[in-house]
Amino acid sequence: MCDGENRDILIVGSRIAAVVPAGLGELPADVRNAETVDCTGMVALPGFVNAHTHAAMTLFRGVGEDVCFADWIDKIWVEEEKIDEEYIYWATKVACLEMIKTGTTAFLDQYWMPEVAVRAVSEMGMRAVLSYVHLDHYDKARSLRQRQECMKVREVSLAWPDTVSFSVAIHSVYSVSEEQICWAAGYARENGLKINVHLCETSKEVKDCIAAHGMTPVAYLDGLGILGPDVVAAHTLWLDENDIDILARRNVSCVHNINSNLKLASGYRFLYNEMRDAGINICLGTDGCASSNNLDLLEAMKTSAIVQKAWRDDPAAMPLDELLAMATSNAVSALGLDCGRIEPGALADIMIVDTGSSFFLSNAPFLANFIYSAHSDCIDSVICNGRFIMRHRTIEGEKEILSEARKILGRIG
Amino acid sequence: MCDGENRDILIVGSRIAAVVPAGLGELPADVRNAETVDCTGMVALPGFVNAHTHAAMTLFRGVGEDVCFADWIDKIWVEEEKIDEEYIYWATKVACLEMIKTGTTAFLDQYWMPEVAVRAVSEMGMRAVLSYVHLDHYDKARSLRQRQECMKVREVSLAWPDTVSFSVAIHSVYSVSEEQICWAAGYARENGLKINVHLCETSKEVKDCIAAHGMTPVAYLDGLGILGPDVVAAHTLWLDENDIDILARRNVSCVHNINSNLKLASGYRFLYNEMRDAGINICLGTDGCASSNNLDLLEAMKTSAIVQKAWRDDPAAMPLDELLAMATSNAVSALGLDCGRIEPGALADIMIVDTGSSFFLSNAPFLANFIYSAHSDCIDSVICNGRFIMRHRTIEGEKEILSEARKILGRIG
Repeated sequence: MCDGENRDILIVGSRIAAVVPAGLGELPADVRNAETVDCTGMVALPGFVNAHTHAAMTLFRGVGEDVCFADWIDKIWVEEEKIDEEYIYWATKVACLEMIKTGTTAFLDQYWMPEVAVRAVSEMGMRAVLSYVHLDHYDKARSLRQRQECMKVREVSLAWPDTVSFSVAIHSVYSVSEEQICWAAGYARENGLKINVHLCETSKEVKDCIAAHGMTPVAYLDGLGILGPDVVAAHTLWLDENDIDILARRNVSCVHNINSNLKLASGYRFLYNEMRDAGINICLGTDGCASSNNLDLLEAMKTSAIVQKAWRDDPAAMPLDELLAMATSNAVSALGLDCGRIEPGALADIMIVDTGSSFFLSNAPFLANFIYSAHSDCIDSVICNGRFIMRHRTIEGEKEILSEARKILGRIG
Repeated sequence: MCDGENRDILIVGSRIAAVVPAGLGELPADVRNAETVDCTGMVALPGFVNAHTHAAMTLFRGVGEDVCFADWIDKIWVEEEKIDEEYIYWATKVACLEMIKTGTTAFLDQYWMPEVAVRAVSEMGMRAVLSYVHLDHYDKARSLRQRQECMKVREVSLAWPDTVSFSVAIHSVYSVSEEQICWAAGYARENGLKINVHLCETSKEVKDCIAAHGMTPVAYLDGLGILGPDVVAAHTLWLDENDIDILARRNVSCVHNINSNLKLASGYRFLYNEMRDAGINICLGTDGCASSNNLDLLEAMKTSAIVQKAWRDDPAAMPLDELLAMATSNAVSALGLDCGRIEPGALADIMIVDTGSSFFLSNAPFLANFIYSAHSDCIDSVICNGRFIMRHRTIEGEKEILSEARKILGRIG
């Protein structure tokens, strides 16, 4: 465990049944034929939870390198006209491969065709919240079609495995009509579904919203009654004091996406201290691979911390334990899951970190070595919902996934 | 090759003898018994050159986490009282392990006991410029002792292998007396040795120098006649226009150390565009592991690029080809080496990148996938001075190095 104590973790079915001091005698009779895995020299941590991504965008890398957000999203929207079910299925599988290899066991996804992505996610053994995306570009016909589709996917989702749940995404205040925003949030609430939204990602978004509505995006959504504890807001990079106050009062969870924000030159002054001190639940996300450019939360943790330290001129900013919470327990709360801790009763979503490399030689705290020094290739094995989904860095079906993804790219380009 | 062409690279002894279109017939008769290595699906790149590090600090990780530069260096100086030859030897070996695994084949080192480090470096098969560090804290007795030692190590270095050369380091303007700075630079020039120095790393360094000498550190060193094309200046983070002008006119090479600057909250506005446009040769370094916290230049390339894009509000800032030059050819020029290019006649310092992972699936340019998406574990093999020093991620002696390093830490801790 990451507190330095040696313990045995007993997993029964999908959950952790016991966590006891290591080697403390016999297993209970009913689990005596359980598989035992020797984790000497390893550290168990809760699996990472990626609170904002677009999984199937893994195959969009290179579509818009080194351009600003506005130019980037135009290029993406053109590419998205070409994609089909097969694309979504294999691109989501590639995303799962990359997430599992970097220790992520669960994620909140905002992308097209969640009814296809669910197959990929459950075959890979991961946990996810997949959302139907409302993005009508103020087009009435599209709004109505999206309402129908959203309800249809919701119906289908009732048969999804219990590791994958359905939710509703409102793309953003600049791409969705007010009527659709209200319909989507209303529909989500009627059905007890989480809502996620891109919010205050760029200064342009804020300026344009003020020009159009006389309010910041946060105040605008709040005025519509959209904000609440069931909302996960991604980016929240350009906030004023009043925005932070509203987000805190409404118990909105916010997701920091450092690499995407830096690479698209959206900004870097994420107001971590101010938001945390206001009581906001802050999570970590990678955003999609077309902007971030990978799904590695360990990399995102280091970059978040050191960039925060630098611009605040405070080397103690964003402490290690808070960083870990952002990538695990905070995101678990935001998504309404029951994992994110290594305790009896919790769902068994666990990564096993090999501390045999030089990065862990020193006497620094484990989390310092893990986050600041190591790379995600120190993550040896990953368990999700009680099952190994990676053993010793090997994931079942990897070769086939890469080969099918190559075929898709050959076809769609 | 990274231009997308398939080629065969013929290495004879320490140098590249030929680079020809792949499969173009027979090898010359005199090399027909050469080892052939199939690199299908791989890309050959020049090995990275780390232009500023303190190799033996790999075992200092955790000594000063999350504190500012001034507090950090005080902690480091206390720890450095404890170290001995055995520590330097094994800690340098650990550093070489980490550098080789991340594609680095050569480095400029500034640390104690280069006469010990040289053994570690040459046994690991790497190329290096190792410097004797002048750091007298304005103590006369120490100054004189350091002069004697410097000359003694210079004598010894005449017998070093031709892959390792000797140079002179002046720690900084705030830790070395003016007399010693002048002596060290004079001695270096008499003997044709490179000079390296920490320069304008923090705003405090600049303020203190102005208070003491009425000039910025750059102007102060220039007034002493220290700056020239043989000088490699690390950090150069807090420069004014006049500083940039001086550094350009004197042909000083400057080294960006992004991770260290961010983590110690030293700053983040490295004036890349301004320095490049002034004609300064800009290189990349990792600094030592006690501040950065690793020696991974690929990680440093991504972080440098995306932080530069963000604070400049320009997603096109620090283009990929310039980033690669910073980590290879620019550093080669700064250090006066003859590697850094895959061409006949150059020293054979080459990394071989495995493009079989998902990071290289897309049609993005190779450098975008390599720098923005992949991790250094895609570096499959490394050749230095014509010899494989890593094959398929395996380095000879790795286990022994880690085990000896653990013993040292147990003793010195």
